[in-house]
Amino acid sequence: MIHFECDYEEGCAPEILEALTQTNLEQTVGYGLDPYSQEAKQRIADLCGLTDRQAGETQREALWREKETAGAVHLLVGGTQTNTVVINYLLRPHQGVIAADTGHVNVHETGAIEHTGHKVLALPTADGKLTAGQVQDAILGHLYDPNIEHTIQPGMVYLSYPTETGLLYTKGELEGISAICRQYRVPLYVDGARIGYGLMSPQADLTLRDIAELTDLFYIGGTKQGALFGEALVICNPLYRKDFRYFIKQGGGMLAKGRLLGLQFLTLFKDDLYWQLARHAVTQALRIREALVAKGYPLYMDSYTNQQFTVLSNEQLERLQERFLLSVIERTDADHTAVRICTSWATKAENVSLLIEAL
Amino acid sequence: MIHFECDYEEGCAPEILEALTQTNLEQTVGYGLDPYSQEAKQRIADLCGLTDRQAGETQREALWREKETAGAVHLLVGGTQTNTVVINYLLRPHQGVIAADTGHVNVHETGAIEHTGHKVLALPTADGKLTAGQVQDAILGHLYDPNIEHTIQPGMVYLSYPTETGLLYTKGELEGISAICRQYRVPLYVDGARIGYGLMSPQADLTLRDIAELTDLFYIGGTKQGALFGEALVICNPLYRKDFRYFIKQGGGMLAKGRLLGLQFLTLFKDDLYWQLARHAVTQALRIREALVAKGYPLYMDSYTNQQFTVLSNEQLERLQERFLLSVIERTDADHTAVRICTSWATKAENVSLLIEAL
Amino acid sequence: MIHFECDYEEGCAPEILEALTQTNLEQTVGYGLDPYSQEAKQRIADLCGLTDRQAGETQREALWREKETAGAVHLLVGGTQTNTVVINYLLRPHQGVIAADTGHVNVHETGAIEHTGHKVLALPTADGKLTAGQVQDAILGHLYDPNIEHTIQPGMVYLSYPTETGLLYTKGELEGISAICRQYRVPLYVDGARIGYGLMSPQADLTLRDIAELTDLFYIGGTKQGALFGEALVICNPLYRKDFRYFIKQGGGMLAKGRLLGLQFLTLFKDDLYWQLARHAVTQALRIREALVAKGYPLYMDSYTNQQFTVLSNEQLERLQERFLLSVIERTDADHTAVRICTSWATKAENVSLLIEAL
Amino acid sequence: MIHFECDYEEGCAPEILEALTQTNLEQTVGYGLDPYSQEAKQRIADLCGLTDRQAGETQREALWREKETAGAVHLLVGGTQTNTVVINYLLRPHQGVIAADTGHVNVHETGAIEHTGHKVLALPTADGKLTAGQVQDAILGHLYDPNIEHTIQPGMVYLSYPTETGLLYTKGELEGISAICRQYRVPLYVDGARIGYGLMSPQADLTLRDIAELTDLFYIGGTKQGALFGEALVICNPLYRKDFRYFIKQGGGMLAKGRLLGLQFLTLFKDDLYWQLARHAVTQALRIREALVAKGYPLYMDSYTNQQFTVLSNEQLERLQERFLLSVIERTDADHTAVRICTSWATKAENVSLLIEAL
Repeated sequence: MIHFECDYEEGCAPEILEALTQTNLEQTVGYGLDPYSQEAKQRIADLCGLTDRQAGETQREALWREKETAGAVHLLVGGTQTNTVVINYLLRPHQGVIAADTGHVNVHETGAIEHTGHKVLALPTADGKLTAGQVQDAILGHLYDPNIEHTIQPGMVYLSYPTETGLLYTKGELEGISAICRQYRVPLYVDGARIGYGLMSPQADLTLRDIAELTDLFYIGGTKQGALFGEALVICNPLYRKDFRYFIKQGGGMLAKGRLLGLQFLTLFKDDLYWQLARHAVTQALRIREALVAKGYPLYMDSYTNQQFTVLSNEQLERLQERFLLSVIERTDADHTAVRICTSWATKAENVSLLIEAL
Repeated sequence: MIHFECDYEEGCAPEILEALTQTNLEQTVGYGLDPYSQEAKQRIADLCGLTDRQAGETQREALWREKETAGAVHLLVGGTQTNTVVINYLLRPHQGVIAADTGHVNVHETGAIEHTGHKVLALPTADGKLTAGQVQDAILGHLYDPNIEHTIQPGMVYLSYPTETGLLYTKGELEGISAICRQYRVPLYVDGARIGYGLMSPQADLTLRDIAELTDLFYIGGTKQGALFGEALVICNPLYRKDFRYFIKQGGGMLAKGRLLGLQFLTLFKDDLYWQLARHAVTQALRIREALVAKGYPLYMDSYTNQQFTVLSNEQLERLQERFLLSVIERTDADHTAVRICTSWATKAENVSLLIEAL
Repeated sequence: MIHFECDYEEGCAPEILEALTQTNLEQTVGYGLDPYSQEAKQRIADLCGLTDRQAGETQREALWREKETAGAVHLLVGGTQTNTVVINYLLRPHQGVIAADTGHVNVHETGAIEHTGHKVLALPTADGKLTAGQVQDAILGHLYDPNIEHTIQPGMVYLSYPTETGLLYTKGELEGISAICRQYRVPLYVDGARIGYGLMSPQADLTLRDIAELTDLFYIGGTKQGALFGEALVICNPLYRKDFRYFIKQGGGMLAKGRLLGLQFLTLFKDDLYWQLARHAVTQALRIREALVAKGYPLYMDSYTNQQFTVLSNEQLERLQERFLLSVIERTDADHTAVRICTSWATKAENVSLLIEAL
Repeated sequence: MIHFECDYEEGCAPEILEALTQTNLEQTVGYGLDPYSQEAKQRIADLCGLTDRQAGETQREALWREKETAGAVHLLVGGTQTNTVVINYLLRPHQGVIAADTGHVNVHETGAIEHTGHKVLALPTADGKLTAGQVQDAILGHLYDPNIEHTIQPGMVYLSYPTETGLLYTKGELEGISAICRQYRVPLYVDGARIGYGLMSPQADLTLRDIAELTDLFYIGGTKQGALFGEALVICNPLYRKDFRYFIKQGGGMLAKGRLLGLQFLTLFKDDLYWQLARHAVTQALRIREALVAKGYPLYMDSYTNQQFTVLSNEQLERLQERFLLSVIERTDADHTAVRICTSWATKAENVSLLIEAL
């Protein structure tokens, strides 16, 4: 069987295993305070523009900035954990998180957000993307509620980039949401479990630095993009850095051998391995997209990222399932099923060819 | 600098990196449902005696038993996470966990237990070991409280084996606590972060099977004993298996690439690598113990496991700290400090020799 | 100004103040263990049929039944508190509560349910009523989810009788939902903040005993129906009685002077004061309903209980608001607004006449 | 039987029932926004000095001050609820509350604090009183912990005045603790369930205004001091006023008919009824104290408030229990028992005489 049902079914970029093997018997301090983690965090902060020298900066200001960015990047083990820790950090007990109804935090984390005491304020979407208008309406709707204190206060906004449906926010769309969030002082957090597969899409008009500028926090996913595991959280807004490590520890996310995360992210980001791996997955996904279009399959979602969505007849589905694992989304009618076809950094071009032939 | 301050400062047994490298590009399903995880769990269940054929068992009973033990072992990422998930699973909201005041859940998990809503009912101990009498008093003290419903109901007992102070419960002691727990129907859970370093101690009179028989749940620590990371939770009592995977996911502990855990525990347990690694650490620790005794250093804790404790004068401490990292426990008076010296599966015999010379 | 915007704007039935005054300087034990509370609870258990002698019951069985029903009724202070305590009692951490999207627990309790760690699984409704089919679909949808452990398990069903929209479940509808709940072993809980105003409606085909038979727990609202404050929780299913008082205390709902609740419910239920007060409110509400229909106002909800709903033009609304307080539900278009008109046990007939004239 | 076992066994000051009766059929808006509640809160803010005109204040500053103090006082239903809501408001998830090990929040609230996710950092005391030194040590001990992020951050201090043991902090002691709290920016909260019985003690050298100046928040207990129920929370520090009403609602403490609380506190504080009632209880308690001393009974706690503590032989205890209800604290040895004897605002002088005779 050839797997196309998700993007975390292989191990990791071989360079990572090499790095782990080479450093295996070195002794380092634990909990992410080792040199590899420090270097990886610094590298990511640099890439996000957090450490840019400001025009006209004095030496004293530069020192302050450097010290300040020390707490800007954290390396955590997994996505549910990262989302839970961040949301629990940002919200006060009477606040909830605005999210698309399809958002991962709303549907696929076994209520981890509610488990920390917070309501997910899920807004309906056709395609998994929130709009600035929706966010503003949710915030104002609360402010104008005559029973304001009887309802949950929107305390942050959660987006996924790309969305769980494979789609991308344009720069204009993200700017719009960001502006609303800043106007009402509601932090904006982006779940970047597949951020590389978004930024490397030919449709993306956003850069990593744009995201760092427009959001308060976001994470760069490792698990689905070439690491064994791990997510790099970037806290762009210095307001949200204080005491953050307590939350990682409390949330069970502080790896004793933190260097495992440091070494992985260092390997992915010291050159542009992360982006190469992402580009590969997108290229293979777009081959599948082209084949779907060419062969007249409907596009269930109009995605230019590593997740492709189509609708198959029962007969087509059964036939494909003999050789390929796909992810079933929903029955669209008695005879048809929407499916997701996923590529990853490790997808073999020849397997894509086999799938295309079989379509 | 040579590190003796804890037991998670190197990577992992080289055999594990080899296994990860060999299987790296295989495709497997996620979340611990892959064949490697299945095999590792089966192996651990076998070692713990959970799958023993019962005398006079019919074929139907055997099938039921096999099905039943499928949910007996779970592989999680870290210790705080495992403790939190287990305690949150076992307790009802009005219940708390009985633990020694030195217990890891009481002092070093940033209130992770309370974060899930539960009080740690910490009992005072001189050396980190609970007694059966203490546990019984705590349970009866609650039952006889005239304001019973105004106080927290003891809902489980948490022990560490070995304790955070390097000590071991004898078989008799564990039997005593187990009997009390069963009498009052309070589940008994053992934190086995260093269980191998306990069972391989020359002082240990317990076996893995004994622990499986006497407790309701316990975990076999990987992080500190040769794995990159990972803990294998064994749910001996079938009462506590239902729906457990929901709790792992909700607690952020369900690794997407679950096979990483499967491969590690399979490597450690398919032969007796885990026990060899543990024995090595204990052997090296006992060399240090002997040297301490021979040179007249006081034993701060009378440990026969991989953690050794002594008291140093300020001068001795400063001198040792020039070349060795030790873990400071507390100032015992103005001139003396209690320290912990830790060995691990990876400790080099020559480094121990250097330390002994320097004492 | 004459208030019609809600049903908790006067004090209480004068008989209650008399009872409080007469007993004021008596000394009784606290926390609901006093004789008045005991008697009130017994009376309510009797009315609900929980203490009925069973056909062919032996004396021993009768004793057991009597002892068993001792924990069947609890008196709490308020509605949000009762809902929170019950839901927190019933659910395990990985479970959520199925409710109508208009349900009080979903919208007007400042996330109190989520604050205890649980997701509200809100189902969309046109009129605030759940159907048996919806409940079944939600339960089965979870059971058949391939990522079952990544989603919240439906752990109970929450209904309001009457609904927040003034509507009533028929006996057939409630039987349908009850049957589904029993089939899948999911407890059914009814929020009866206005239960009297439901049962005294001419449209009601349910009795108090029916509700006690068809549900696992429900509460009889005092706050909105003649008491100063207080709700009587009835735990029909003995499975859910154990340790319940711990949850009341933990939830801040155990009144030190518990007899205040006992005296109130005893006064309301020793004869049929509670039902008389409820009938009065419904009678007055139906006068308003008739006037609305007669004068051609649309019925926004087709209610036969103490809450009436209509749509007013802006001009009508402004005119009425000069003399009457109404509750605004929503703007239905630029020129119209849906409003709620509430009567209560204390509504004066002459005030209703004034409102009718003004319509 | 004559009750001396606690101070909440009668109803309330008759003036309160009169006020409730007189206003019973008035219509007021709910949730504490009615005129009676507003007036009561204003009165309490005035008494605490929160609304004092500042020297040299401009008109604009005066307006700001008045607006600011609007959120300074809140009326809640009970003590456990008030403590839980306040602590949950003040603490972030990684923080805990410093309290004496005998503190009500640590022992008698069924883990309500932990239920909101927070550890009680209980410090050992001989008599139930914390010292400034202890508080400082706890704060510094955390700051200097090498594993700082693995332990709970002290986030506030909880005191009881008087303590659960009947004792009083002197002005100097409270100033000392207050100074430490301000130095380390840790809010100080005082549980004043019996504050009147403290302030009216001949030993008290603190005034209500002193407490308002030295603490960040405290509450004035009604339940044990003449009200039917209710506690008036005073938020002295404006930093802790924002959004407070959400927490009351979420915590189940927002009474629908809020005016019941308003009317009670207005009755207690419009003149000096509250203080008269408190003085009466203390006078009666001191009669008992004198008799104990005169007759040679040991004082188990050296209390000058409404709670008296002594040690009785088994024989003495049995004899007294024939006619009086006392509160058993603990067996001090096989033949002796420590007991608490409580007076209240409603204690009859002749009953105290009977008790004294019986001693």
